[in-house]
Amino acid sequence: MTGALIECVPNFSEGRDPEKVGAIVEAIRSAGAAVLGQTSDPDHNRSVVTFAGHPDAVAEAAFRGVARAVDLIDLRTHHGVHPRLGAADVVPFVPVREASMQDCIRVAERIGERVWRELGVPVYLYEAAARRPDRVRLEDVRRGQFEGVREEVRTNPARVPDFGGAELHPTAGASIVGARNFLVAFNVNLATSDVSIARQIARSVRASSGGLPHVKAMGVLLASRGLAQVSMNLTDFETTPLHRVYTAVAQEAARLGVGIAGSEIIGLVPRRALEQVAEAFLRLENFRTGMVLENRLEQF
Amino acid sequence: MTGALIECVPNFSEGRDPEKVGAIVEAIRSAGAAVLGQTSDPDHNRSVVTFAGHPDAVAEAAFRGVARAVDLIDLRTHHGVHPRLGAADVVPFVPVREASMQDCIRVAERIGERVWRELGVPVYLYEAAARRPDRVRLEDVRRGQFEGVREEVRTNPARVPDFGGAELHPTAGASIVGARNFLVAFNVNLATSDVSIARQIARSVRASSGGLPHVKAMGVLLASRGLAQVSMNLTDFETTPLHRVYTAVAQEAARLGVGIAGSEIIGLVPRRALEQVAEAFLRLENFRTGMVLENRLEQF
Repeated sequence: MTGALIECVPNFSEGRDPEKVGAIVEAIRSAGAAVLGQTSDPDHNRSVVTFAGHPDAVAEAAFRGVARAVDLIDLRTHHGVHPRLGAADVVPFVPVREASMQDCIRVAERIGERVWRELGVPVYLYEAAARRPDRVRLEDVRRGQFEGVREEVRTNPARVPDFGGAELHPTAGASIVGARNFLVAFNVNLATSDVSIARQIARSVRASSGGLPHVKAMGVLLASRGLAQVSMNLTDFETTPLHRVYTAVAQEAARLGVGIAGSEIIGLVPRRALEQVAEAFLRLENFRTGMVLENRLEQF
Repeated sequence: MTGALIECVPNFSEGRDPEKVGAIVEAIRSAGAAVLGQTSDPDHNRSVVTFAGHPDAVAEAAFRGVARAVDLIDLRTHHGVHPRLGAADVVPFVPVREASMQDCIRVAERIGERVWRELGVPVYLYEAAARRPDRVRLEDVRRGQFEGVREEVRTNPARVPDFGGAELHPTAGASIVGARNFLVAFNVNLATSDVSIARQIARSVRASSGGLPHVKAMGVLLASRGLAQVSMNLTDFETTPLHRVYTAVAQEAARLGVGIAGSEIIGLVPRRALEQVAEAFLRLENFRTGMVLENRLEQF
């Protein structure tokens, strides 16, 4: 793929029925976007699809995916451990190459308006596309979830969507559409099943409690493996790189007398993020991305 | 660039006259090869050019570069701290993508034969292209250098080139042409000017004295920076990865009470080598190269 490239990583409120998820993915693919990955979680009852392409193809694919999800998902009977507001819950557009955040904001606005106009599903704009400061953070927009927001929106003007009125869609709720930077989902698994230690480490590294900038973190238990995990989102890996996050977690774990079992990246990671880790670990004095054979070859 | 791709990294015995080096690089470029890098060292009096392309273009480019070097360089008046046997001293071909070592051996044989036939410069085949076990190692082929070999070849049949007879070229000596794996040149700088410590570390990490496999190492002094350096070649970075080499050097340095000032990669490094470092440092459990955004995009 050459030319301008953006990514879309919608989260749909269906993680148990492979047929429904497959139909949504098929709708996305039908618009010519390249589907890079897909994960479904039955406990969360939620699926994440990653696709990329030219901004126009990605916009059309996102719309088709949302439309299919609105057809297939009924939030009145949906249950899962992950909070959600809509059938197509979150639809972020991410600049990848030769595309700016402004380009992604424009796509988010266009798709937000169209979802409301053609599907009757209200839309909140979030992150870089937010029109009000209290809608930048996803957590703030989603507070109360489907069941809470559909009541509150009727009486509280502050909760009225950016596209749509004082009424959510009866089965599909509302969608949260926006533009954001590439996000790296990075989990560190601890050599303990004590989830309180994972929570304590999460508190010490996350930005919201005075830890590392651009890091969201929570402690969870991986019941199937008997391991506690520090589950993180790195929302600006250039500013707070992977190795700094890993080192902070490992140091805090050591302080609490717990070892590291390993780590995992969920979804995709930009090449630059891994180059940063190598550069830091080897203490390279002269590293430039042009020193990487394949990067250099791409210039020809 | 798409399709079969090989690289050539010839070493020429001229590192002081930019005009001569420029003319050699121009000859290489004229055959349609992509010149990826070039470094000249006045103390070594030697230049390294890195270029890549389709095997046929790279073969033609290598021949033109050798021909130009044979025209321009007179070894009778050449002096430098680096050992050398020929004007075009070493010409290795390296498989990069959709090309095998066998492909590179064939190119080496073809160019070796042509350099002798058209330029009258004898050729030794080395590394994977060697026809005798005592010519696998570059050091063995070059032992005695230009001045020594031109005498010895007349009386010792074991030194007679693979292409050519018992006489070196009067001004261009002989060329050592072969095929090898990608080599990573990796130097670790020590926080000391005591070169004996660098030499001791080099001895402890290099394969030839029982250290890490596929590592060549020597201790040198960076006079201009007042730092001792462990200067290494990693001839099989998949088997002995960068992070293992760095860790071994750092541990030995710590044992000797010396810190690490930093490290440097000379020339190019394959993407996979950096991914390995990141994977090891972060202790990633689930890493696949397909998780790298750009790698994934290339599949579309």
